[in-house]
Amino acid sequence: MSLVVTNCPRTDRAVVDALANCGVATVHEAQGRKGLMQSYMRPIYKGAQVAGTAVTVSLPPADNWMIHVAVEQCQPGDIVVVTPTSPSDQGYFGELLAQSLIARKVRAMVIEAGTRDTAELTKLDFPVWSKAVSAQGTVKETIGSVNVPIVCAGAAVAPGDVVIADDDGVCIVKREEAEQVLVAAKAREEKEAATRARLQAGELGLDIYGMRKRLEQKGLTYVDYRDLKPGG
Amino acid sequence: MSLVVTNCPRTDRAVVDALANCGVATVHEAQGRKGLMQSYMRPIYKGAQVAGTAVTVSLPPADNWMIHVAVEQCQPGDIVVVTPTSPSDQGYFGELLAQSLIARKVRAMVIEAGTRDTAELTKLDFPVWSKAVSAQGTVKETIGSVNVPIVCAGAAVAPGDVVIADDDGVCIVKREEAEQVLVAAKAREEKEAATRARLQAGELGLDIYGMRKRLEQKGLTYVDYRDLKPGG
Amino acid sequence: MSLVVTNCPRTDRAVVDALANCGVATVHEAQGRKGLMQSYMRPIYKGAQVAGTAVTVSLPPADNWMIHVAVEQCQPGDIVVVTPTSPSDQGYFGELLAQSLIARKVRAMVIEAGTRDTAELTKLDFPVWSKAVSAQGTVKETIGSVNVPIVCAGAAVAPGDVVIADDDGVCIVKREEAEQVLVAAKAREEKEAATRARLQAGELGLDIYGMRKRLEQKGLTYVDYRDLKPGG
Amino acid sequence: MSLVVTNCPRTDRAVVDALANCGVATVHEAQGRKGLMQSYMRPIYKGAQVAGTAVTVSLPPADNWMIHVAVEQCQPGDIVVVTPTSPSDQGYFGELLAQSLIARKVRAMVIEAGTRDTAELTKLDFPVWSKAVSAQGTVKETIGSVNVPIVCAGAAVAPGDVVIADDDGVCIVKREEAEQVLVAAKAREEKEAATRARLQAGELGLDIYGMRKRLEQKGLTYVDYRDLKPGG
Amino acid sequence: MSLVVTNCPRTDRAVVDALANCGVATVHEAQGRKGLMQSYMRPIYKGAQVAGTAVTVSLPPADNWMIHVAVEQCQPGDIVVVTPTSPSDQGYFGELLAQSLIARKVRAMVIEAGTRDTAELTKLDFPVWSKAVSAQGTVKETIGSVNVPIVCAGAAVAPGDVVIADDDGVCIVKREEAEQVLVAAKAREEKEAATRARLQAGELGLDIYGMRKRLEQKGLTYVDYRDLKPGG
Amino acid sequence: MSLVVTNCPRTDRAVVDALANCGVATVHEAQGRKGLMQSYMRPIYKGAQVAGTAVTVSLPPADNWMIHVAVEQCQPGDIVVVTPTSPSDQGYFGELLAQSLIARKVRAMVIEAGTRDTAELTKLDFPVWSKAVSAQGTVKETIGSVNVPIVCAGAAVAPGDVVIADDDGVCIVKREEAEQVLVAAKAREEKEAATRARLQAGELGLDIYGMRKRLEQKGLTYVDYRDLKPGG
Repeated sequence: MSLVVTNCPRTDRAVVDALANCGVATVHEAQGRKGLMQSYMRPIYKGAQVAGTAVTVSLPPADNWMIHVAVEQCQPGDIVVVTPTSPSDQGYFGELLAQSLIARKVRAMVIEAGTRDTAELTKLDFPVWSKAVSAQGTVKETIGSVNVPIVCAGAAVAPGDVVIADDDGVCIVKREEAEQVLVAAKAREEKEAATRARLQAGELGLDIYGMRKRLEQKGLTYVDYRDLKPGG
Repeated sequence: MSLVVTNCPRTDRAVVDALANCGVATVHEAQGRKGLMQSYMRPIYKGAQVAGTAVTVSLPPADNWMIHVAVEQCQPGDIVVVTPTSPSDQGYFGELLAQSLIARKVRAMVIEAGTRDTAELTKLDFPVWSKAVSAQGTVKETIGSVNVPIVCAGAAVAPGDVVIADDDGVCIVKREEAEQVLVAAKAREEKEAATRARLQAGELGLDIYGMRKRLEQKGLTYVDYRDLKPGG
Repeated sequence: MSLVVTNCPRTDRAVVDALANCGVATVHEAQGRKGLMQSYMRPIYKGAQVAGTAVTVSLPPADNWMIHVAVEQCQPGDIVVVTPTSPSDQGYFGELLAQSLIARKVRAMVIEAGTRDTAELTKLDFPVWSKAVSAQGTVKETIGSVNVPIVCAGAAVAPGDVVIADDDGVCIVKREEAEQVLVAAKAREEKEAATRARLQAGELGLDIYGMRKRLEQKGLTYVDYRDLKPGG
Repeated sequence: MSLVVTNCPRTDRAVVDALANCGVATVHEAQGRKGLMQSYMRPIYKGAQVAGTAVTVSLPPADNWMIHVAVEQCQPGDIVVVTPTSPSDQGYFGELLAQSLIARKVRAMVIEAGTRDTAELTKLDFPVWSKAVSAQGTVKETIGSVNVPIVCAGAAVAPGDVVIADDDGVCIVKREEAEQVLVAAKAREEKEAATRARLQAGELGLDIYGMRKRLEQKGLTYVDYRDLKPGG
Repeated sequence: MSLVVTNCPRTDRAVVDALANCGVATVHEAQGRKGLMQSYMRPIYKGAQVAGTAVTVSLPPADNWMIHVAVEQCQPGDIVVVTPTSPSDQGYFGELLAQSLIARKVRAMVIEAGTRDTAELTKLDFPVWSKAVSAQGTVKETIGSVNVPIVCAGAAVAPGDVVIADDDGVCIVKREEAEQVLVAAKAREEKEAATRARLQAGELGLDIYGMRKRLEQKGLTYVDYRDLKPGG
Repeated sequence: MSLVVTNCPRTDRAVVDALANCGVATVHEAQGRKGLMQSYMRPIYKGAQVAGTAVTVSLPPADNWMIHVAVEQCQPGDIVVVTPTSPSDQGYFGELLAQSLIARKVRAMVIEAGTRDTAELTKLDFPVWSKAVSAQGTVKETIGSVNVPIVCAGAAVAPGDVVIADDDGVCIVKREEAEQVLVAAKAREEKEAATRARLQAGELGLDIYGMRKRLEQKGLTYVDYRDLKPGG
């Protein structure tokens, strides 16, 4: 039942790179608020904003053997997404494995477990999103699978899907939907640019979005502080 | 039952600004160790130290409509304090709303829930203290209240109260008590300055605070390592 | 039952300093993966990498009196390790106590509880590893012990043991084992340096570590994506 | 600043008892979804459903002295509500204190901290809602306040307010609002009884609540499984 | 993008019922240790052991409208599996909705969020596995989907899959694999029965499983306590 | 470095059994509030109250091989105490291993990780205190140690120490101190019996413990509710 699937199709590189520019929050909205990993997935350092195509790894808890297997399946532009079959916080990933991924032009690591060597990884500018930082190592005893569909931090990930990650977290865009999500994300950005200019000029969202009427219908009441009764 | 209270009195600006200089730990001690929010309220970036007057927002979980309503009630020097009626981690607040608050010279956002666009907020130098970072958005369907008394991360907050926030967390000073707390905080700072000089010179707290006698009375015993019995 | 043990032997300074250079992950591996504190012990700022000899403090929850007692027992090169007798997150340690420790050339604080004044501690470049940041202070009412064996964040610590801490966390090396752990850690570093060069050159861990045969024996199967059956 | 307020008014006993019968979920809904404590407040045993009038206790972390002070202020029908000034899990409350409360016909204990002697308390049928179970004791060194307004597990509680607790958690009803909340809760129960009968008979909520039209307007689409396209 | 998929195929009822008898731990092992939900999914009462076919619900946080929609899609023997699109603990499910499910002979509810009316649900003997118990209600404002593939508590669930739940947690078996998993689970049970008899008779697992040789090869060493050196 | 220590001395059986009768809270107090495991160690069912002599197991995360090794070292009256070298929640222990321990008259299992088969263990009346319940199994690949000193849930445990466990949690008494702790625990029970009678008769702790004078000295002030100023 342990498989390594080779020659998986990837999302088109140009689409991936354009999605990286949009960022996690915009892409997540643009695809109907799905695909977001849980908020405990945090970057080991701030400021990185990347996108890449997923190489998925399902491995047993406290065992990082399959990450070594996955390296061989990586192509330039990939992001490795790792999830253990049960929750665990050991440091599955460190600087040596990062060297190997950098040599293959992999862009980042996303792991629902622990990372270590975080100071070295920061110096190498190799971003990692993880659930924990832990120096506790792992064994290499039991096999798992590479490039099968997995669930990572609450998000379903298939090989070749787009992984977008920045300070806000990690979001997955399905390969088949990437192009249309990009169109929606760019449309959203344009609309937001117009709104931003109006807000910076001091206009209120209440007016820009035309909210006043609906708030009134819902029963929102304005009361002057001086008219409040004590205890009310 | 959904109210927006207008024209709330604010704590005097000079008092607020002087409290900002004292910092959270000192102010918290000076007012008898009350008003501190729980330690899961963390800044999205380090180094900010601010104080302002509270505009309070009570809103339903996963719905940020009332923040838009609150913007209109903000005055220069305010800090918006938001708490949902049940725990939730979605990203209620992001860069566009921040633009609107910046346009009104609001100083910060304190929210017992999630924030997003944290990279952009950091570039804008608009500080946020929150329970989580999450790209997951919210809806605008249900109303709540603005400028009613709320409980945020374990602290009671009334509109116009002083909100002080820095790397150590967030503390609330009641409007009616702000002036006397400022006096106590300044007294504390002066006393600490004298102690600091003595500690830097190598004097021990044991002597400065006169603790030796009381420790002895409590039964504290000194034993030389070489006189310890094995297993003891 | 409350003891202060004086004149505790310390691990040799040269060994301690050499272990600091190896870092937490390497030392932890080198000593057989023991002595690591739990991953919730985090540095208040990034980039510090230190080692020192433990002065241990066992104290009651929400009471930091014994830290004042411990200061007197500190020597240059020590690290103070504090654990309350039951879990609590108050800010037991702040800038004034740090001034006192700096005056005695103590290198760091490790505390399974909360710290405060974190902005000031960062400016002082005095590193702290803690479970929480909290402005909530403590009392000075009940005594505890200094330089007795303690358990801190899941690791057993005896006075004079080596404490190593960096961005990955905190690790304890027993005094009696420090020299042999250093030898093992250096051997590990040399071996890793050779591996690093090969990985950077693009060689695969699969080949460097000779893993292919054993993976095959375990039953790992490679399948081309185009040969996968739908639903399989 | 440490106060014991005596002779606090209580909510009318008949109103309190009637609210007990309604249960937490109904009362919480009936008063507009406010006043609920956070969901980590759990009963030490299942099946208790009580209401009483609050005697509030604010005390320092890891110190239960003020509970002893509070006992004297208790009257038959009260529930003691305790919150430490910073989070802590020690066992502030156990069987001996319960004996004292039982002697005064107090109905329950609600504490945002730890309890102990839970087997004995279960045998005594004295219900406790707490954040933790812990045998770790506390000291009696520092004073706090009794019958001042407090925040417990996220809910504001004033002396004399109604405390309702069952397997679902704990809810607070303000004294001034208790009567009108009871009216609303009873109305809600009657309405639910009618709905229950229809649901038990197999009618759908979609029809009872008239939801179909609005769902259609929102764009909900029904698709037969056999018409789904693969990958869609 | 909000869909209700009708007429989804279900796993064969006889297979489902046979899997219920095997229990979660055995089934999970039998299918290669996949499909288990995270351990925070707990039953509201102990002793229930059920299996059923999944009706899946994806809904917005703090909004339970889609559960009402899902009821209509339920058939006898189903289990409703609900997951909000971002983490939240409100009480999405209570006694009235349970009445409606019972009327349709639904066997259980599995929800990665909160439940309420737990005392009533226990009396009704309608089992629920949830992440939290909370009286906090939800709104009915935003639509989601029914019978689309979802991720619940870390496990992927498709409509018609088998849901098995008992005191140990919740496990999902894919519809296409259910028959072969049942064969493997029964084989496992038979093998365990034989082992159980030998263990009850006092034989050691070390001998039954033939572990001694391999332990020796790994280097396990037996030392008599009286031969241990002090400090070793 | 992997050791099994044989023939470890145990605490005297009569002392162990007498401590069981005292319960965790009393024993913990009697020995100066040390040795308590963290409050996340919970019984899988309520009502068990046991004591036994520790057989300790240190094992790698997600690997339960060493529990099989430990069984052989167990004697009647022992309790097995297990801690993985890094935090993990898998189900290391289930019904089959329990059968083996029951055959050797072991009294309980204490494990800082997960358990499974909890319904069966309850039927067998074999109590387990654990950090989690999880059906996720473990491997048998890596060795560890039996009967070496370990740290379990924050408490240091040596082989032969007394383990006491009930609904309040788990406490460790060192073998060398067990007799004197028993004396102190019995004295405490007698004293408490006298106090209990007075409290049941309605006397106040304030008077029994003579607290009034000291409270007054600390500055505790009594104010009648009707004399409170508004806002004060």
